[in-house]
Amino acid sequence: MNIRPLGDRVVIKRLESEEITKGGIVLAGTAKEKPQEAEVVAVGPGTYSHGREIKMEVKIGDKILFSKFAGTEVKLQGQEYIILKQEDILAILE
Amino acid sequence: MNIRPLGDRVVIKRLESEEITKGGIVLAGTAKEKPQEAEVVAVGPGTYSHGREIKMEVKIGDKILFSKFAGTEVKLQGQEYIILKQEDILAILE
Amino acid sequence: MNIRPLGDRVVIKRLESEEITKGGIVLAGTAKEKPQEAEVVAVGPGTYSHGREIKMEVKIGDKILFSKFAGTEVKLQGQEYIILKQEDILAILE
Amino acid sequence: MNIRPLGDRVVIKRLESEEITKGGIVLAGTAKEKPQEAEVVAVGPGTYSHGREIKMEVKIGDKILFSKFAGTEVKLQGQEYIILKQEDILAILE
Amino acid sequence: MNIRPLGDRVVIKRLESEEITKGGIVLAGTAKEKPQEAEVVAVGPGTYSHGREIKMEVKIGDKILFSKFAGTEVKLQGQEYIILKQEDILAILE
Amino acid sequence: MNIRPLGDRVVIKRLESEEITKGGIVLAGTAKEKPQEAEVVAVGPGTYSHGREIKMEVKIGDKILFSKFAGTEVKLQGQEYIILKQEDILAILE
Amino acid sequence: MNIRPLGDRVVIKRLESEEITKGGIVLAGTAKEKPQEAEVVAVGPGTYSHGREIKMEVKIGDKILFSKFAGTEVKLQGQEYIILKQEDILAILE
Repeated sequence: MNIRPLGDRVVIKRLESEEITKGGIVLAGTAKEKPQEAEVVAVGPGTYSHGREIKMEVKIGDKILFSKFAGTEVKLQGQEYIILKQEDILAILE
Repeated sequence: MNIRPLGDRVVIKRLESEEITKGGIVLAGTAKEKPQEAEVVAVGPGTYSHGREIKMEVKIGDKILFSKFAGTEVKLQGQEYIILKQEDILAILE
Repeated sequence: MNIRPLGDRVVIKRLESEEITKGGIVLAGTAKEKPQEAEVVAVGPGTYSHGREIKMEVKIGDKILFSKFAGTEVKLQGQEYIILKQEDILAILE
Repeated sequence: MNIRPLGDRVVIKRLESEEITKGGIVLAGTAKEKPQEAEVVAVGPGTYSHGREIKMEVKIGDKILFSKFAGTEVKLQGQEYIILKQEDILAILE
Repeated sequence: MNIRPLGDRVVIKRLESEEITKGGIVLAGTAKEKPQEAEVVAVGPGTYSHGREIKMEVKIGDKILFSKFAGTEVKLQGQEYIILKQEDILAILE
Repeated sequence: MNIRPLGDRVVIKRLESEEITKGGIVLAGTAKEKPQEAEVVAVGPGTYSHGREIKMEVKIGDKILFSKFAGTEVKLQGQEYIILKQEDILAILE
Repeated sequence: MNIRPLGDRVVIKRLESEEITKGGIVLAGTAKEKPQEAEVVAVGPGTYSHGREIKMEVKIGDKILFSKFAGTEVKLQGQEYIILKQEDILAILE
């Protein structure tokens, strides 16, 4: 069973700090503001906002930073995911 | 008697966890944020937002995740339904 | 004397539960959210929103569900009516 | 001296219940929501909203229902008037 | 020294009730809502809103009604003025 | 070192009342509403709002009135400046 | 590992006052309003707002002033960065 997000939504899988900070990212700031690291696992088809197409800029496999309080959590076959809008993704880590 | 939703509204029937989690979905997160599983039973004709057509991306029979606090509940011939806008549907389960 | 609604407004007459639930509709949910059943008695000419025409999708005689807290009540020759915007109509019952 | 309203504003004169309810309108509902009856005495030239022309749908002499809390009261040569936007007029009584 | 208003702003000079009510206007209503009478002394070049030109409908010398709480007061060479947007002008008195 | 404002921002230098009121402007009104006098020292390139170009109407050297609570204060080489948007400039003094 | 911002976001590195105020900038005003100085280290591809392209006006290496409370802090290989939208950049220091 798969999750196919609608519109400009993206399904992501949170990364444990240990997985990603080997490369060197440690998140700073207050708890309220700190971004989260995740991997993209599904991408919606895009949508329109104010009559202009919103194209999807992320793809499956991208490592991203996203706002901690964005999106909705779901669990699929034992794995937790988050469904959020692309605009809540701050940056791609390369 | 049928319910024909207007605009970009969708009529859905909530699925019991037992019906759908055979395949493996268990919802996580806080009670306030957790999405709900449902099946689409009627789909509006679509609408316009900011001068751009909103096409309906879901169809009758789709299994979906939707935000728990979206929409309005109605009961038709002993069955409860929810009327909500398509934008409150997070994802389709395939 | 008639009421001719302006813009995308609709004049409706609330239906008593007894009148409509023969066919089987009983409204569920919390009091705060429950929709109301009504019959359309007058329909405005439509309007424009964000530069796009809003066409009227309901017609006189339609049975509808509408949000309880939408619109304004008036009484004409002993009969109560509600004037509301079409966007506050959730669905047509057929 | 006359009042010439700007934009999509309309100048109306409130009707006493006695004047209009001969024909049968009595207003119901809570005090907070009940509409008022009035006669149109001046109509602005129209305006633009979101780049689309708002044409005036009411004309001098129309009997209308309007939201009680809309508009601004003025007194001209002993007569009270209300200046309000056309969108605050609910319906025309015919 | 002159004040040249920007955009769709207008500079007005408040009229004392004695100056204008000879013709018969006395303002009614609650203190919170009552409009003010003024004379236009300077008019901005107009502006754009939502991509549509806002043309100036008032001209120097016009007697107007405006909302009491709109605009900003300034004093120039002993005379108080108010700078406000044209949309806060309710009507022209003719 | 210079400050180059982005978009429709303007950099201004507040004028002491003594500098400008020789010509006769004294600001009236409540402290909360009173405008400030300033001289324009830098002007951004303009921007777009709702798809329409916002052209800059002020130029370096203009004496202006601006809303007291608009903008952000900075100090450059001992001189305080304010960076604000052009729409927060009420009028040009000529 | 690099941070590639999405949309109209910019990654900046805060400058210590000592680094930049040699040239003479000292920030004034209340703590709540005072801007921050930073250097741009990464720039997103731009985005669309209300159907109009937002082009990026800053480039890597620019010294900028930004609103203290804008954006999200991240730490990459021991260095703190801030991810913010270009519209939260007040001015470029040259």
